Amino acid sequence: MLGADLIGPADVLVRGIAALEEAGPEEVAFLGDPRRRSEASRSGAAVLIVPRDYCPAAGEPARVRLAVDRPYEAFARVGSLFYRPPELAPGIHPTAVLDPTATVGYGVRIGAYAVIGAGVQIGSRSQIFPHCVLYEEASVGEDCVLHSHVVLRERVRLGSRCILHNHVTLGADGFGYVRDESKRWVKIAQNGTLVVDDDVEIGALSAADRAALGQTHVGRGVKIDNLVQIGHGDQIGEDSLLCGQVGLAGSVRIGKRVILAGQVGVADHARIGDDVTVSAQSGVTGELPAGMTASGTPACENLAWRKQVAALRQLPEALRRLRRLERCPRAPGAD
Amino acid sequence: MLGADLIGPADVLVRGIAALEEAGPEEVAFLGDPRRRSEASRSGAAVLIVPRDYCPAAGEPARVRLAVDRPYEAFARVGSLFYRPPELAPGIHPTAVLDPTATVGYGVRIGAYAVIGAGVQIGSRSQIFPHCVLYEEASVGEDCVLHSHVVLRERVRLGSRCILHNHVTLGADGFGYVRDESKRWVKIAQNGTLVVDDDVEIGALSAADRAALGQTHVGRGVKIDNLVQIGHGDQIGEDSLLCGQVGLAGSVRIGKRVILAGQVGVADHARIGDDVTVSAQSGVTGELPAGMTASGTPACENLAWRKQVAALRQLPEALRRLRRLERCPRAPGAD
Amino acid sequence: MLGADLIGPADVLVRGIAALEEAGPEEVAFLGDPRRRSEASRSGAAVLIVPRDYCPAAGEPARVRLAVDRPYEAFARVGSLFYRPPELAPGIHPTAVLDPTATVGYGVRIGAYAVIGAGVQIGSRSQIFPHCVLYEEASVGEDCVLHSHVVLRERVRLGSRCILHNHVTLGADGFGYVRDESKRWVKIAQNGTLVVDDDVEIGALSAADRAALGQTHVGRGVKIDNLVQIGHGDQIGEDSLLCGQVGLAGSVRIGKRVILAGQVGVADHARIGDDVTVSAQSGVTGELPAGMTASGTPACENLAWRKQVAALRQLPEALRRLRRLERCPRAPGAD
Repeated sequence: MLGADLIGPADVLVRGIAALEEAGPEEVAFLGDPRRRSEASRSGAAVLIVPRDYCPAAGEPARVRLAVDRPYEAFARVGSLFYRPPELAPGIHPTAVLDPTATVGYGVRIGAYAVIGAGVQIGSRSQIFPHCVLYEEASVGEDCVLHSHVVLRERVRLGSRCILHNHVTLGADGFGYVRDESKRWVKIAQNGTLVVDDDVEIGALSAADRAALGQTHVGRGVKIDNLVQIGHGDQIGEDSLLCGQVGLAGSVRIGKRVILAGQVGVADHARIGDDVTVSAQSGVTGELPAGMTASGTPACENLAWRKQVAALRQLPEALRRLRRLERCPRAPGAD
Repeated sequence: MLGADLIGPADVLVRGIAALEEAGPEEVAFLGDPRRRSEASRSGAAVLIVPRDYCPAAGEPARVRLAVDRPYEAFARVGSLFYRPPELAPGIHPTAVLDPTATVGYGVRIGAYAVIGAGVQIGSRSQIFPHCVLYEEASVGEDCVLHSHVVLRERVRLGSRCILHNHVTLGADGFGYVRDESKRWVKIAQNGTLVVDDDVEIGALSAADRAALGQTHVGRGVKIDNLVQIGHGDQIGEDSLLCGQVGLAGSVRIGKRVILAGQVGVADHARIGDDVTVSAQSGVTGELPAGMTASGTPACENLAWRKQVAALRQLPEALRRLRRLERCPRAPGAD
Repeated sequence: MLGADLIGPADVLVRGIAALEEAGPEEVAFLGDPRRRSEASRSGAAVLIVPRDYCPAAGEPARVRLAVDRPYEAFARVGSLFYRPPELAPGIHPTAVLDPTATVGYGVRIGAYAVIGAGVQIGSRSQIFPHCVLYEEASVGEDCVLHSHVVLRERVRLGSRCILHNHVTLGADGFGYVRDESKRWVKIAQNGTLVVDDDVEIGALSAADRAALGQTHVGRGVKIDNLVQIGHGDQIGEDSLLCGQVGLAGSVRIGKRVILAGQVGVADHARIGDDVTVSAQSGVTGELPAGMTASGTPACENLAWRKQVAALRQLPEALRRLRRLERCPRAPGAD
């Protein structure tokens, strides 16, 4: 499964997975960073996942090693073997309220007090935990997990194998108003919708809004953390990753494999190219070209930003030096 | 309705509204920015909303135009004509739990599993979607829409024509503690409440806290985006706009028609005058005078902030020049 | 109760507590800041809590005073006397769904539509408001209040005397993925859990994630505001305070009595020592030593940061001066 070289006996029994320093004699641990070799040697783990070039420290006890190319990825795959997900009882709970026009696939489980509106479609084997509310004509693909209190608003479409954590709200109205003559806000009807593709996971208490026109779109494989805000009309490319409390204004375009670190903000109509990484708390406006690592507000090239930060720390002293120089420049040739 | 000049035949039938580039032969589109004239000429829209001074490009096909003073506002008004809002079935769902002392106006609709506490009042024609919980003595005005999972805590008062999106929480305890001698936090009871005036809309997953004393107040016509935090004792003036993830500490005073862009933070006891605009991610402390455009943390005049940002980008190079000058100032008169 | 000196008659009847400027003849107010003496003299309060060294202004009407060492703390204690908390009716609401294997202590109250999973334990006198969902094997200590729509995910452990406001989500999956060869994200199973100790209060719409391995831990007496994000594997020391919209990435260690002001972000694996205060919107990476006051992104010593901010405001002008100096340095000796 891991493509690992097994070093040691093949008949070890393990019951779980644990951190290097906590693992016991029936657990698997992993060593991602070769510099932690001495910790590895002290670990009580029965099995250790290590890089292929791993060379045990002198005092390290004999134990099974799985040598792999990418230890962290192997660890992720092993971890899922031991994972015991929360599961609903089979079938539809008697307290769930399903509109007679809703259609539900084979093996779907629906928890207590879920409310499923007119015309909703739920694909095979999906689980809808208690207290979810699916507004009319929302659709859910196959093998999805919607944790408790998830809301899909009217006409939102969710792909297959998606995981939505508690309180995720998909398809509430976008934030669009225009000022009238008396400077009051007139609401722009949010006629559009939201489409979320396959294999998307969204953390607790995050929101993605429906579009005013057309659709907001979250691409295949996108992973979104807790408390993230996605605005109306945003387009997020495949395999991008949005960390906690990231906020996107409206009409943002984000490429593929983009990483936005925690609390990043993106201004409306900004465009972020493929494979861009934006560091935490940065503010993006305008356009970031593909492959860039960006930082700061407004975000610029990461290296330039670091130099600015370093320079800023010297600035109070530099201003003193500037004043000294103005008062009394050194005599020419004094060097 | 729009005060528009109709250019072309009056008997065109349209069924929807769409973006310029997506509109088809039964749809209305709008052109807000005259520079997009060439896109307009390629649009398949049956009807185009344009500025009064709009002059079609050479190749633009004959089509109906509605010439108006403010195209975006006209678009908002037309959009609402085609809008199909989610609606509850008439009446009170049999699973809703209403305390016998709650009073409910004419035409109120209440969805499945809503819980309405003692002494709650709900004005005529308001809709309470499934899973809302209204604590004791909360009140809702007329023609409101409370989407699923909205919470009104005890004694919160909501005006008329308000829209609360999913999971909005109004009137949870403010965040107030005082340290005792052993440096532990003693909770300050939040005896006050929260009052939200008419025509307020609040986005999904936003929270406004009750006051410790007196009341937190959100003025008429205020619009609040998703994931916004309003602290205890805050006062927000009429027609202000708070974008996504804005956070206000306690005892903040915000004037009328103020715009806080995304992720702005406002420190406790800060005061923001009427018609102030604060740009995204800025941090406001102290006082901002009426009419100001503010940016940065701590927020200052926008123009000054832009100059600082531009100067900061030159700073690493400037420090090198300063060092050069210190080592070897140019000879006097060398210019 | 307050250790106060009573100045004036002991038989005054008060019915509530109010702000200095709003208090009436049956209310208690408090004066924290001696500079507000003139306001105090105008206040209509029947009873005034004052510092021990308070000396009334000339025109101040005769009234009862309670002289104490710490007026704000005394105010907090008096406020709690008048506080009328929302309370559930005794017993378990008939619509609550309890798994037969759940165990519930003496005097527990459970509201409408709560869903209590297999193996859940709830300690004596705790109140579970409507629409809470406790996943399997979650546990709640004694005398807790879980407001409506709170979620405890599988195996989460909550101490005694905790208050969780509406929509708090404890124990959703941490945000952990690893990239495979095709740059897609592979989910790391979040096998760990979350433990919250006694006397913790958490504001509305906040989330604390379960750990991938081991446990996320929130220490005794920690207070957390609204919309806060706590990542997987974080450890938060006793009596720390996290203000609104604070976000912690994963594997963060926070000491005791730490204060993180609003919108602070903390990067993964950062370490914050005891008694550190971080000012609003700062971004913490690496390590902050005990007792530090930190500011800015990346966070540094507060005093240094203030100097940087002040210097930055002078920077555009300083660059002009630098250019002038380069063009025409003053003649030596011209001073």
